[in-house]
Amino acid sequence: MLVKKVEYAVRGPIVQRAVEIENELKKGAKKPFSEVIKANIGDAHAMGQQPVTFFRQVLALCSYPELLNSPLFPEDVKSRAGRILQSCGGGSIGAYSASQGIECVRQDVAQYIKQRDGGIPCNPDNIYLSTGASDAIVTILKLLVCGEGRTCTGAMIPIPQYPLYSAALAELGAVQINYYLDEENCWSLNIGELRRALVDARKHCNPRVLCIINPGNPTGQVQSRKCIEDVIRFAAEENLFLMADEVYQDNVYADGCHFHSFKKVLFEMGPQYSNTVELASFHSTSKCYMGECGFRGGYMEVVNMDSDVKAQLTKLVSVRLCPPVPGQALMDLVVNPPKPGEPSHATFMKERTATLRSLAERAKLTEQILNTVPGIHCNPVQGAMYSFPQITIPERAVQEAKEKGQAPDMFYCMKLLDETGICVVPGSGFGQKEGTYHFRCIPKVSKPHIAFQDHVITRSLLAQS
Amino acid sequence: MLVKKVEYAVRGPIVQRAVEIENELKKGAKKPFSEVIKANIGDAHAMGQQPVTFFRQVLALCSYPELLNSPLFPEDVKSRAGRILQSCGGGSIGAYSASQGIECVRQDVAQYIKQRDGGIPCNPDNIYLSTGASDAIVTILKLLVCGEGRTCTGAMIPIPQYPLYSAALAELGAVQINYYLDEENCWSLNIGELRRALVDARKHCNPRVLCIINPGNPTGQVQSRKCIEDVIRFAAEENLFLMADEVYQDNVYADGCHFHSFKKVLFEMGPQYSNTVELASFHSTSKCYMGECGFRGGYMEVVNMDSDVKAQLTKLVSVRLCPPVPGQALMDLVVNPPKPGEPSHATFMKERTATLRSLAERAKLTEQILNTVPGIHCNPVQGAMYSFPQITIPERAVQEAKEKGQAPDMFYCMKLLDETGICVVPGSGFGQKEGTYHFRCIPKVSKPHIAFQDHVITRSLLAQS
Repeated sequence: MLVKKVEYAVRGPIVQRAVEIENELKKGAKKPFSEVIKANIGDAHAMGQQPVTFFRQVLALCSYPELLNSPLFPEDVKSRAGRILQSCGGGSIGAYSASQGIECVRQDVAQYIKQRDGGIPCNPDNIYLSTGASDAIVTILKLLVCGEGRTCTGAMIPIPQYPLYSAALAELGAVQINYYLDEENCWSLNIGELRRALVDARKHCNPRVLCIINPGNPTGQVQSRKCIEDVIRFAAEENLFLMADEVYQDNVYADGCHFHSFKKVLFEMGPQYSNTVELASFHSTSKCYMGECGFRGGYMEVVNMDSDVKAQLTKLVSVRLCPPVPGQALMDLVVNPPKPGEPSHATFMKERTATLRSLAERAKLTEQILNTVPGIHCNPVQGAMYSFPQITIPERAVQEAKEKGQAPDMFYCMKLLDETGICVVPGSGFGQKEGTYHFRCIPKVSKPHIAFQDHVITRSLLAQS
Repeated sequence: MLVKKVEYAVRGPIVQRAVEIENELKKGAKKPFSEVIKANIGDAHAMGQQPVTFFRQVLALCSYPELLNSPLFPEDVKSRAGRILQSCGGGSIGAYSASQGIECVRQDVAQYIKQRDGGIPCNPDNIYLSTGASDAIVTILKLLVCGEGRTCTGAMIPIPQYPLYSAALAELGAVQINYYLDEENCWSLNIGELRRALVDARKHCNPRVLCIINPGNPTGQVQSRKCIEDVIRFAAEENLFLMADEVYQDNVYADGCHFHSFKKVLFEMGPQYSNTVELASFHSTSKCYMGECGFRGGYMEVVNMDSDVKAQLTKLVSVRLCPPVPGQALMDLVVNPPKPGEPSHATFMKERTATLRSLAERAKLTEQILNTVPGIHCNPVQGAMYSFPQITIPERAVQEAKEKGQAPDMFYCMKLLDETGICVVPGSGFGQKEGTYHFRCIPKVSKPHIAFQDHVITRSLLAQS
């Protein structure tokens, strides 16, 4: 059964244990800590980040249109809600939308992409709204995967990766082709390594897809423009369908780093590439400064997709009727926020800037603090939301883990959880070079930093060796 | 490619043509009608049904919790919103929930099922919230389908069926086993026919799943208690996993018909059945009196699922992180509506009753009017939301359809659309006995009735013969 091969570490055994400990604490159990700190998942609101006022005001009006008459709300909130409702069947977000998404939302997304990419055109017909980015990523993989044995579709994914990719490939029975990011060089993508992985894979499957996560999850690197050009050239030469996971596009912190969209770079490389390379790029309401994970909003843009394949895509999304309409409405607000001069603009900008600044500060702080802990080495967190430090696990702890049948980094993370209440995800859930160990950790509020600084983990683990 | 085999008539070519015609009308094209009437999909709000005030008020407060301080809202609205927000990470519906769904919502669902089923216990651990019922149905199929060739999982589905089933089975590469509902007997389910289909199927696959839609979509029948008992006995004897699609559980109109849940009947048949028969039953926020399709809310209850399989299910749903939280909140309100004595109770009851009455009246009216049209025969619409009349298509029209390479009922529905602006779905999209033709039609506002009464279709089609 293919389902059995599916793994998803971000919500795996470590999280189940965290929930158990929370319940034990509730029942009065004595622990060396008073609460569990869930640094396992990029769940901004759960970590205390406040929603953007403008977004939530519009959503309230969309939910209960009686409020359109209330003096409580600024005019731009009302007009935005009115516009969204007008484009819904019967003026209700309770109606199904078109399967590809509400037309005016797709138009706004196209406008946003055009503006983001310096005027490069974007066709709303190429926009598909989705149930978070995950849904769109799985849909594209479903569309591209076929064949068996040596003709079976292979998809190249970075290692470390976000485990949605490995889980979806396992479920679809596709071949996962690992290319390793270069930890020594701040998790950069190396074209030589891409080629090695491709040549190896061609011996036993049909590589057709190249997945890129930029900014990186879990690794936090931001790709240079030159690197993106190289990847596009490689995809063109090798006839690979590019999947660009760009959900952290606003989360770039490091000096000198900038987000370059694959679409923009592709088009700036000229018609030789912009007319041929197949690309799907993904975005979501869950990350950046929004952090609206619960709404499951997202979109993808497809470029140079064969029209027959696109017809299949349209059919495939229609089976699930439509993405959640509140999430579509939210996606619309993200791509079309208050403009200068509108009543909500100042507050919106203040909230957005404060959140991004706080994320940047915490990224820096996490890196600094982790690097003070003996046995932990953390690369600079250039972007996205995570640090993915390498950890040295003493030989005796590795042995004990093996005796328990646990991966050593799982053993480490379980110990960390039991002794400090900090829940992080073992690197083995994302993939890592044989013999190295890591964990993924959210740059959270101050408490875990303090816990790390106290060297609680290292003390505990060193005590065993 | 398995995707190519997927078909989904409810949003197929007929709907694409309807959208084209709408655009032509917008551009000023002259037609024998002024608007397209979409009777192709059960999309209540798009057809003018009003949302339930209580639901939408709570959702507005969940979206924008500042409103908790506003005097605009009744106390029960505020306390319900407060309770939902408390169970969300960081008090925000923008946080991810547990993958299985918010705990307090699952508890409320369990309480609702217990009460609905006359006190039969329901364990919240067996409840999985979902992105509409479709998501849960596909997830269960994914979990159960395995093997290839003669060992490939077969799933029995009614014909006519709701095409999500055929589409999902095609996508998963499973074998679709058709059992025919008895049109002569008001689309009832006949155990002899179930057995015939099963015996036939055993020759070439491994039948493991039996899908039931009750009340029926597209056929509108409501199963008797005796019939459900027979089905359960059959599933027990033949070791089939029962999937009960019960999303129309409040939509029962005909005198003497009642909704009996599979869970309740199973448990009332005694431990021989209630301890052994595997069952998943599905519900949603999209139908009944709510009609909140856009929120994509839903749940399933699993009964007697093997704990290893359940662990796989839990893992599988975790890959998609969580169902949309606004849909989960809405599902909570559906299973836990205002109680007598609470400020919103009277309005809630008034709205609910009016909607259900109107649906019942229109179901009756549709049946009556359709049966006045020569060449159309419609069974009583006992429940759900659709009529599925049989149509006589003149030989000459059948010939013309064949020359065009169209199914005769597709030809008929396209003609109906072009000549009257009424969009219905051809029976071939749901499956029908060889040589018979049908369409599925929503009991809508008065206009289509008038159009049908004018015999526009029959006139047009008879003119060809």
